[in-house]
Amino acid sequence: MNYPKGVKKEVQHVTNYSNRGMTLEDDLNRTNLYYREKGIAYIYKKPTPIKISKVDYLGKRKAVIKEAFFMEPSTTDYNGIYDGYYIDFEAKETKLKTSFPLANIHPHQLKHLENITNMNGIGFLIVRFCNLGETYLLMEKDLIQFLNTSDKKSIPHHYFVQHGYLLKEQLNPRLDYLRVIKKILEVEKNE
Amino acid sequence: MNYPKGVKKEVQHVTNYSNRGMTLEDDLNRTNLYYREKGIAYIYKKPTPIKISKVDYLGKRKAVIKEAFFMEPSTTDYNGIYDGYYIDFEAKETKLKTSFPLANIHPHQLKHLENITNMNGIGFLIVRFCNLGETYLLMEKDLIQFLNTSDKKSIPHHYFVQHGYLLKEQLNPRLDYLRVIKKILEVEKNE
Repeated sequence: MNYPKGVKKEVQHVTNYSNRGMTLEDDLNRTNLYYREKGIAYIYKKPTPIKISKVDYLGKRKAVIKEAFFMEPSTTDYNGIYDGYYIDFEAKETKLKTSFPLANIHPHQLKHLENITNMNGIGFLIVRFCNLGETYLLMEKDLIQFLNTSDKKSIPHHYFVQHGYLLKEQLNPRLDYLRVIKKILEVEKNE
Repeated sequence: MNYPKGVKKEVQHVTNYSNRGMTLEDDLNRTNLYYREKGIAYIYKKPTPIKISKVDYLGKRKAVIKEAFFMEPSTTDYNGIYDGYYIDFEAKETKLKTSFPLANIHPHQLKHLENITNMNGIGFLIVRFCNLGETYLLMEKDLIQFLNTSDKKSIPHHYFVQHGYLLKEQLNPRLDYLRVIKKILEVEKNE
């Protein structure tokens, strides 16, 4: 059938979980809530860093921020503990279909993830290609591997396919990224 | 000599590091910066959680928050990694000299610290008695021990003396709390 453009998009909208208006952040928050409720992991999104410049005090315990500015985050967005391991990751969405632009991540965030891995923490990146309906987990060592061997300003989609782990969306936990981490840890133990 | 009250206080002011106008938060931020620069640990204070209700967009990349509200923190203030271990703590000051009121900590923060310890993370409390110039580290297990055996609404100062670790203020790192953690880990290994 020859739907007009808008309608065709609507059809994609329904068949594809990741396009149902849930952002990657929503999905991760729901996943982390599930992990916490089940006692599997305690991982939280850090609050957005802001610089407050004006506050109105309305009473002893009530205050309204009247002026504030967004600040550049000094670390990644998510961290916490899973089975004794320190977990740390950054999550990003892209509308592009063929690559993920590295401009989406600050250099100090990359450095932070490198520091975490070097200290035996578990650092990674979660990238969602919104228009493909695909979400990948890329371990920090594979991210650094790409950065060290490439001058490219973006990571091609096929690099995620080859070196990353596809995170299938499901009901609960929505985006079970710790399943991947668990497998990686098991492989490491057996080596 | 018989100084008037104000002058006597001034003398205390000079001899006591913790009364030099540096807050506990300042001291911890400086300490964590030192740890990061030396590659000892990557521990950060989380941003203050706020709920943004109005934003003015002044251009493509400039935005001013015009109304926002402080939210109750869902976890503790500080977390990160030290030598592969997940570190998590809350830091509080009190002006009282004889006890630390438990109303300063939310019940879900206590529960959070308990979860961390149960998952082999390292959870603790740092409490500064401002007017005594004393700062203590109290491990989560000793905190829970107190809560389980007492109906008191505040932890007496002597409980910190007996079960906590006094953190001496020094030049750099300002408040070397990881020295305590390192020793505790060494003792645990030898047990």
